[in-house]
Amino acid sequence: MKPNFSLRLRVFNLNCWDIPYVSKHRADRIERLGDFLNTENFDLALLEEVWSEQDFQYLRQKLAVIYPAAHYFKSGIIGSGLCVFSKHPIQEICQHIYTLNGYPYMIHHGDWFCGKAVGLLVLHLSGVVLNAYVTHVSEASSAQLCCMRLHAEYNRQKDIYLTHRVAQAWELAQFIHHTSKKADVVLLCGDLNMHPGDLGCCLLKEYTGLHDAYLKTQDFNGPEEGYTMIKQNCYVSQQDLGPFPFGIRIDYVLYKAVSGFYISCKTLKTTTGHHPHNDTPLSDHEALMATLCVRHGPPEQDPSPPHGPAETSSLIRVLREAWMELGLGIARARWWTAFASYVTGLGLLFLVLLCVLATGEGAREVAILLWSPSVGLVLGAGAVSLFHMQEAKSLGRVQAELQHVLGKAKEAQDCTQSLS
Amino acid sequence: MKPNFSLRLRVFNLNCWDIPYVSKHRADRIERLGDFLNTENFDLALLEEVWSEQDFQYLRQKLAVIYPAAHYFKSGIIGSGLCVFSKHPIQEICQHIYTLNGYPYMIHHGDWFCGKAVGLLVLHLSGVVLNAYVTHVSEASSAQLCCMRLHAEYNRQKDIYLTHRVAQAWELAQFIHHTSKKADVVLLCGDLNMHPGDLGCCLLKEYTGLHDAYLKTQDFNGPEEGYTMIKQNCYVSQQDLGPFPFGIRIDYVLYKAVSGFYISCKTLKTTTGHHPHNDTPLSDHEALMATLCVRHGPPEQDPSPPHGPAETSSLIRVLREAWMELGLGIARARWWTAFASYVTGLGLLFLVLLCVLATGEGAREVAILLWSPSVGLVLGAGAVSLFHMQEAKSLGRVQAELQHVLGKAKEAQDCTQSLS
Repeated sequence: MKPNFSLRLRVFNLNCWDIPYVSKHRADRIERLGDFLNTENFDLALLEEVWSEQDFQYLRQKLAVIYPAAHYFKSGIIGSGLCVFSKHPIQEICQHIYTLNGYPYMIHHGDWFCGKAVGLLVLHLSGVVLNAYVTHVSEASSAQLCCMRLHAEYNRQKDIYLTHRVAQAWELAQFIHHTSKKADVVLLCGDLNMHPGDLGCCLLKEYTGLHDAYLKTQDFNGPEEGYTMIKQNCYVSQQDLGPFPFGIRIDYVLYKAVSGFYISCKTLKTTTGHHPHNDTPLSDHEALMATLCVRHGPPEQDPSPPHGPAETSSLIRVLREAWMELGLGIARARWWTAFASYVTGLGLLFLVLLCVLATGEGAREVAILLWSPSVGLVLGAGAVSLFHMQEAKSLGRVQAELQHVLGKAKEAQDCTQSLS
Repeated sequence: MKPNFSLRLRVFNLNCWDIPYVSKHRADRIERLGDFLNTENFDLALLEEVWSEQDFQYLRQKLAVIYPAAHYFKSGIIGSGLCVFSKHPIQEICQHIYTLNGYPYMIHHGDWFCGKAVGLLVLHLSGVVLNAYVTHVSEASSAQLCCMRLHAEYNRQKDIYLTHRVAQAWELAQFIHHTSKKADVVLLCGDLNMHPGDLGCCLLKEYTGLHDAYLKTQDFNGPEEGYTMIKQNCYVSQQDLGPFPFGIRIDYVLYKAVSGFYISCKTLKTTTGHHPHNDTPLSDHEALMATLCVRHGPPEQDPSPPHGPAETSSLIRVLREAWMELGLGIARARWWTAFASYVTGLGLLFLVLLCVLATGEGAREVAILLWSPSVGLVLGAGAVSLFHMQEAKSLGRVQAELQHVLGKAKEAQDCTQSLS
């Protein structure tokens, strides 16, 4: 490789809001997205919320010349909604489906049915190994997100998905950490459904060492504060934004370079509620377009090692906070398990009582009428109990992993302190 | 590191058959297992089917002096049953829960409730990075395994878990491939529930390049053919072994060295249906005890590259077979989805009919009596339909990944052929 080697990488990310029967102007928006991607000629286009596999196939056909490589990440009952189009050959593909994905009985939220995941593509570009990740972390209504931000401690209980998002952020961080050990450059794009300062987001960035393109770019062009859901977008209602009338930033381009490479974000452009070439937006989220530059050599602007003393203590702080949040989640899951088990037990007793009543003459018809809802109650409560049992186990697993990393980070900190 | 560097690694693997309320002499066996592990002083003890977390805690306490590091891999509703005890500090921990884990309505098989998984430990031993994996692949009754082996094509339909095991083997292979890129030595121990020649087993070994300790060892001591479930074990019934009266080999120690290291298996010892120090066995499976030796330098006995032309064509063959098996699985899953959807639809129509009947006088009592089982039928069939929809999606994902690897392997083969 030449000493003055430089690789320019143009990346596109969009949560497409492509939900059959629900999203407005779906076909038209997907068609215009295809046209736009063909015109702009990116290296990589990473898309979320493409819930219709037909739409992916349509795009694949439309983009075949400019982006010969494409992949749709299947998962869950509906799908992960993730897909990718690449100008360069994809060497390897892998995906991880998050263990905790919301609650099956919250049908209207849909998370459990989607199988939210993170997809990995390995590309070899001019000798550089690039691991590109695309993800979509569990939904939270903007109202919930906002409550959480505005009244962090007081309203934390209201955000029922907070613990799941922290667990997902940890699984995402672990997946990136363990699968990118031989990568030269790591890129993560996606809708994290988290504000930049949220616990899961901090955990992800602190543990993986990924940098936020918005914070690091030399040239940003887009809405103030880098918002990716804004009031100017005609598909976004004021209700969606809640107490953040101007917008929220929940979509990200994150990156880092490893092993003797240096990466910087030359430009980051975000759409401003309109289609870049006319007036109708491509989605209810804004698209992110980053131009990254990969070069040889040590970091120019950030000469400190990735996990120096300051980084370690900051990692310890966020690990501790996540550990505590998971503890609360485990306690909640156990409470629901116990409650649903009691209800199942009581329901079974009630069924026995109904059987006794049905054998007599007095209340036979009432007993038969009540039989059906009682069986439903027992089965429903049993399922809820099993679900929360599994939730407690999964959260316990994440907590144990965090505990282990926390122990190692503290050891490293003690070692540094004793040396200095 | 010295040029004559050599690392000796003593590894223990056992499927412990530690199922509360089911397994015989559980407490006694676990106690004796603890004593044995303390006496033998292994580097690593990797255990499967430790379904009781209390038993893990008991062992952790008992082994704390000799094996200061331990981890229990939590997952699913019941747990993964996997745990590990290590004489050396564990640097990193990670786990992957298999996406397909049997069928929830096959309650008596229990697989779906367990959350079968693969656990990863990263150890640093004298400068060598060791990735140790422990797993337990979905059950199949021995009868099913045997049918599959004896009447491979004819009885394939009877082994309902075959496709799931192939999918799990692929997920295992992918997990190892993507997480071990910077490891010097890779070790996989576990109960694969597959015979050495079974499709999943071949897929795993061909894709990862792992070697089977039983086939490679210089000194084997144990039952003929390396069987790990044998008739001499008093906990194994003739029915368990089916048409293989002498035994089956389904537990493995697999390994490989990467990046300038060479690994060999000096000795492999398997228990012979008795406890090594007295007469009662530790489990219904036999324990595997391997002594591995890691040295610097290129392979001594196997100078060909890991994926030479012969290996590539062998990989292509097994990838093709797995791809076809997954195709059959997808067709089956789609058939069940369609069937269950029809039943759900018919059940809904029947419910409407019952409502009409209940409003009249003639058959009100019959209608009310039939209401409960009909609701159950609709809900049950709906759940089965959703489950198989998710099954088809997951199998489709694995098939797409296989397709991608198959394409790359063919490209490599064509490239080699055109060069020669």
